[in-house]
Amino acid sequence: MKLIENWFSERYSENLQLSFRVSDQLLSVKTDYQRIDVFDTYDFGKLLSIDGTVQLTEKDEFVYHEMITMFPYYYAERPPRKALVIGGGDGGVAGQLLSLGVESITNIEIDNQVVEVCKKYFPDLADSFRDPKVDLRIEDGIKYMKSSREKFDLIIVDSTDPEGPAEGLFGLDFYRDVKEKLSPGGIVVAQSGSPFYQPKALKMAYNSARSVFRNSIVYTAFIPTYPSGFWSFTMSSDDKLEPRGTNIEPGKYFNSSILKGAPELPEFVKKILSE
Amino acid sequence: MKLIENWFSERYSENLQLSFRVSDQLLSVKTDYQRIDVFDTYDFGKLLSIDGTVQLTEKDEFVYHEMITMFPYYYAERPPRKALVIGGGDGGVAGQLLSLGVESITNIEIDNQVVEVCKKYFPDLADSFRDPKVDLRIEDGIKYMKSSREKFDLIIVDSTDPEGPAEGLFGLDFYRDVKEKLSPGGIVVAQSGSPFYQPKALKMAYNSARSVFRNSIVYTAFIPTYPSGFWSFTMSSDDKLEPRGTNIEPGKYFNSSILKGAPELPEFVKKILSE
Repeated sequence: MKLIENWFSERYSENLQLSFRVSDQLLSVKTDYQRIDVFDTYDFGKLLSIDGTVQLTEKDEFVYHEMITMFPYYYAERPPRKALVIGGGDGGVAGQLLSLGVESITNIEIDNQVVEVCKKYFPDLADSFRDPKVDLRIEDGIKYMKSSREKFDLIIVDSTDPEGPAEGLFGLDFYRDVKEKLSPGGIVVAQSGSPFYQPKALKMAYNSARSVFRNSIVYTAFIPTYPSGFWSFTMSSDDKLEPRGTNIEPGKYFNSSILKGAPELPEFVKKILSE
Repeated sequence: MKLIENWFSERYSENLQLSFRVSDQLLSVKTDYQRIDVFDTYDFGKLLSIDGTVQLTEKDEFVYHEMITMFPYYYAERPPRKALVIGGGDGGVAGQLLSLGVESITNIEIDNQVVEVCKKYFPDLADSFRDPKVDLRIEDGIKYMKSSREKFDLIIVDSTDPEGPAEGLFGLDFYRDVKEKLSPGGIVVAQSGSPFYQPKALKMAYNSARSVFRNSIVYTAFIPTYPSGFWSFTMSSDDKLEPRGTNIEPGKYFNSSILKGAPELPEFVKKILSE
């Protein structure tokens, strides 16, 4: 998008931006749904941007992908065997699920081009789609939720921001449909934005989840290339939500300390959720 | 410093920068120790920069100042009555200590100009120096530690990065001197940089602390205007380090959840500390 003198900048507002010096712009394509750009940056390796916002970089994608996958996995009473991913067209979440030994993964991505771009530029992530345990379908996640009759132990909503095609993934209707697709004791988790810059997205995801599920908790992680560096996830279940994992194999970010600490929220985040 | 078309940019490396749109540059002065700039930004209110790095903004200073003050305060067995601040020329730490009811605060700042600039542009912080409980001295913190005979219940090292005048504040000699100035059961805490961009600063502070004190822990906080948004603090004592506070009055960031969660470190931070 904005490539001025070899800098790619993500505008967090009209008045604030993070800029990466890039050695090359590898791709810029407008799909039916969004604009996709791939840059080669000096500090973060290759970077995927959708509609001008950083989706992932090679150097720090591990934080987001571990936290949206390993964290809920270790809250499940029994290891989840069947998982659904809504979004996640880069393959990062599917890859984490495979590493955890999940046996069956259905991955619903709306934009085929995201998958194709990631297969080419981020093969370490998108190669997960080659695994026969992963059923990748190019389909609207919201429609899939209404039409499918399958049930899942773990549903992961790995979406873009609540503007554009992902907007419906933060709403009440979607959460009602999610609930019908969960096995007894199943867990759903969704990325819910930066509490600092997108308190409304967090509030919307949390309110929707809370209206539908008996238990919802918000947890956070530090992601250096996302706005403010501080990111939220909202996890829900009709079962009790408490860490049940033992024998935790740490990732590069996630470990048993993070399992305890990530849901301990700063006061300003508690205020967002309670207001 | 770098003010291009009304943007102030902090370079995190040659290849990465965060930029704030500013309505005005209020001050730029070179002192005996460093360059001080004050900008009026659109999103974060007034911003203080030293040698091109953001020290504080009106909008998010509360995170840093609460976390370097309230957090160790609630680890003390008895409420600290006598505190020493090394650095902290903006008055933010002294202000937090006053709010907590600390009776006697000695604040050693090397650069008088920092104090004068903050009195003018950040009076909400620097007004703490008007309180008779605060003894502000313009002096080299390292020399003060060698010469003073006083003892303190809590020592807070609120320094700039370990380049320039603050370098010695991360070293072993300094920590040895700190130990001699602590009352029995006393606690010392220091900012120790971004684990993501400054792992060496963190490692240095932690190693120095650990060589001298029986117990040291690292805890983190999310600070949107600091590099990577993720910041570390290193806290040490010869006494046991565990939360002892009850009746915790939350701040805007700090609360009893953060008291539990902030020392739960991501795996890559544990690696930095153990390698």
